[in-house]
Amino acid sequence: PSHYCHKLQESMLSSASSFRNYRGVLNWCVVMLVLSNARLFLENLLRYGILVDPIQVVSLFLKDPYSWPAACLVIVSNVFIFVALYTERKLAMGSISEKVGLLIYIFNLTVILCFPMVVVLKLPSITPVGGAFTLGVYTILFLKLYSYKDVNRWCRVRTQVKARPSSPSASSCMQSHVSYPGNLSLRDMYYFVFAPTLCYELNFPRSESIRMGFLLRRLFEMVGNCTLLYSVKPVFILQEMDYSRMTERLLRLAVPNHLIWLIFFYCFFHSSMNFVAELLRFGDREFYRDWWNSETITYFWQNWNIPVHKWCLRHFYKPLLRRGAGKLLSQSAVFFASAFFHEYLVSVPLRMFRLWAFMGMMAQLPLAWFVAKFLRGNYGNAAVWLSLIIGQPIAVLMYVHDYYVTHCQDDPTITEAL
Amino acid sequence: PSHYCHKLQESMLSSASSFRNYRGVLNWCVVMLVLSNARLFLENLLRYGILVDPIQVVSLFLKDPYSWPAACLVIVSNVFIFVALYTERKLAMGSISEKVGLLIYIFNLTVILCFPMVVVLKLPSITPVGGAFTLGVYTILFLKLYSYKDVNRWCRVRTQVKARPSSPSASSCMQSHVSYPGNLSLRDMYYFVFAPTLCYELNFPRSESIRMGFLLRRLFEMVGNCTLLYSVKPVFILQEMDYSRMTERLLRLAVPNHLIWLIFFYCFFHSSMNFVAELLRFGDREFYRDWWNSETITYFWQNWNIPVHKWCLRHFYKPLLRRGAGKLLSQSAVFFASAFFHEYLVSVPLRMFRLWAFMGMMAQLPLAWFVAKFLRGNYGNAAVWLSLIIGQPIAVLMYVHDYYVTHCQDDPTITEAL
Repeated sequence: PSHYCHKLQESMLSSASSFRNYRGVLNWCVVMLVLSNARLFLENLLRYGILVDPIQVVSLFLKDPYSWPAACLVIVSNVFIFVALYTERKLAMGSISEKVGLLIYIFNLTVILCFPMVVVLKLPSITPVGGAFTLGVYTILFLKLYSYKDVNRWCRVRTQVKARPSSPSASSCMQSHVSYPGNLSLRDMYYFVFAPTLCYELNFPRSESIRMGFLLRRLFEMVGNCTLLYSVKPVFILQEMDYSRMTERLLRLAVPNHLIWLIFFYCFFHSSMNFVAELLRFGDREFYRDWWNSETITYFWQNWNIPVHKWCLRHFYKPLLRRGAGKLLSQSAVFFASAFFHEYLVSVPLRMFRLWAFMGMMAQLPLAWFVAKFLRGNYGNAAVWLSLIIGQPIAVLMYVHDYYVTHCQDDPTITEAL
Repeated sequence: PSHYCHKLQESMLSSASSFRNYRGVLNWCVVMLVLSNARLFLENLLRYGILVDPIQVVSLFLKDPYSWPAACLVIVSNVFIFVALYTERKLAMGSISEKVGLLIYIFNLTVILCFPMVVVLKLPSITPVGGAFTLGVYTILFLKLYSYKDVNRWCRVRTQVKARPSSPSASSCMQSHVSYPGNLSLRDMYYFVFAPTLCYELNFPRSESIRMGFLLRRLFEMVGNCTLLYSVKPVFILQEMDYSRMTERLLRLAVPNHLIWLIFFYCFFHSSMNFVAELLRFGDREFYRDWWNSETITYFWQNWNIPVHKWCLRHFYKPLLRRGAGKLLSQSAVFFASAFFHEYLVSVPLRMFRLWAFMGMMAQLPLAWFVAKFLRGNYGNAAVWLSLIIGQPIAVLMYVHDYYVTHCQDDPTITEAL
């Protein structure tokens, strides 16, 4: 029998211990979320039959069932894809100069951003949800085609510099790999348009096969999450701007709003993107990194949305640096662009220009400075969570309040229902 | 500019990825718990002044402020400590034989378990909370003195076998270390009694100094957790045993009950034990392991309460194995003993012998078999969480229901208040 059964060590939950495996806590959160909604869900199902009213859901996207403006806009977007592809083909053949190509691209990309905006603002039959969806699709297309232009230009520069096709470069080491002009096919273009990434590459890493079990699990998750989303609907504020009641309501709104954001994050960045990637055998599944551990605001913004972060780094931040811009200037430019797109995606569909989203993004800068300066470790992490839980609903609240005040104050049925 | 910015990899949340660092999710839980209680706490503070009614808290422990039966019982427990120490001293000197020593111990340990039980059952002035506290103290003392007896006996066997004090054994390699008869001092005994462990050792690992910051943080946590505990009080059931309403109420009770258990766990196993350990410069802070990741029921029981688990292994399971008992028999014996103590600590203070706690422990056996057989990975972990969230309140509900039905049904004020 051993006399010694103790040794010098810290408790696992102490910050001094190096233990960090809390996968089980994540499962706990999921179990608690499902459990606390299960009762509500069952009650509703037993009392009202089908939970989701299909007409109500459809009416979010359509006002008139015989006109589909959002769908038409999405179909029209193919025109811009063709323009980009044919410009690249001409550039590869040398029929047009680099300058002309750039001018066509500038025109094409500007129209991609302006055309849907004008349509959404002018066409009254587009609903806010339909408008946001369309603008989202066009924004993604803008970022993708910008990346497509950059990468193809880099390829041309490289072939001009080398001019020796026999050199064993990294891009030609494998037989199945495509090299520069060979990538300008319709098939390659549409693979990139549908792939869950914003950065173009001639040879994407591919997974070996489509795992049916994986696909079904992700599909199941998407359905489950939508049900959850439906049951965590928060109740919004319709009264006048009474600031003392505002703070009280804000706290009551913060938790459901945050849960909705978390479910949305999981549904979009994990389930949907993995689903699409599995279907396309797209190999790189890093759509997010461990932002839940972020101890600074900066770390959060760099890790929660990897496709956009990667794009900003590759096509905006690094090119700026190469052109001699300072580090701080480049960072601010990225942030400013991000704030612009946030505002673009919110203001245009709601047809209200209030700059709340823009200001919300800009408020991140002093906050990031404060957290990085004064808070460390778990305290920093808690501050990041708090900024997510409290900060987000403030901006949401502003828009919702203004939207209902302008649109629904005269409509007694909506005011009563909420 | 690099053309390659993708590589073959899985998403972090996928079970296929090896990433397991979710420390941030733990912080999220703490932030959410504090936030959702902060509003309630502030409201209560503003409306009613001091949150905790001191008389109400004291009345949990005392019925008559001039008689302190629980405190007296705890003071009396010193007698048993002295008996154990003096028996050991006699045994070390050889004045009494091993057999007589064992008989004294058996008598002493039996009295430790029976004496407080009889007092609690016979004395009406002891409240259930006071009774549970006293029985808890006596049970801990029982386990500690049992370990004290075993280790000292092992020491005597070892010195008889070796009989060469000059051998450079592990126990005498350091100068400050104490060897066998030298440990039988009052100071050493009381250090063991207050140390946060149930397993006696001649030379406990010691930390170098008392960190004041650490001590204050743990104290702050204890106060904070008690406030939280006060605000998550669940509402218990008082009506007749109506099974259809029971299930509905069970679900409503499960979440607050589970939160209370979690807060209790943190407060007792992390804050309090670390506080005491820091004060005593006790080095081994492993009071729990990563039970939150447990994928089987067995893993949970082996890791949530390390002091008891260590004691069972060292003084019950391994000795049984050495005496030739089978593995399954020994495991069942440990489980049976554990179920006995659970029942002892609940039934006696409530003065109700219903065997719910005993049956709850015993129900773990088929459940453990089921989970281990059919569920793997995150599903197994979710099953363990569910058994904690749902299983525990069933047993609690049974006792609470029976207690109120027998004690409070005639008292209209209590029935109304709950």
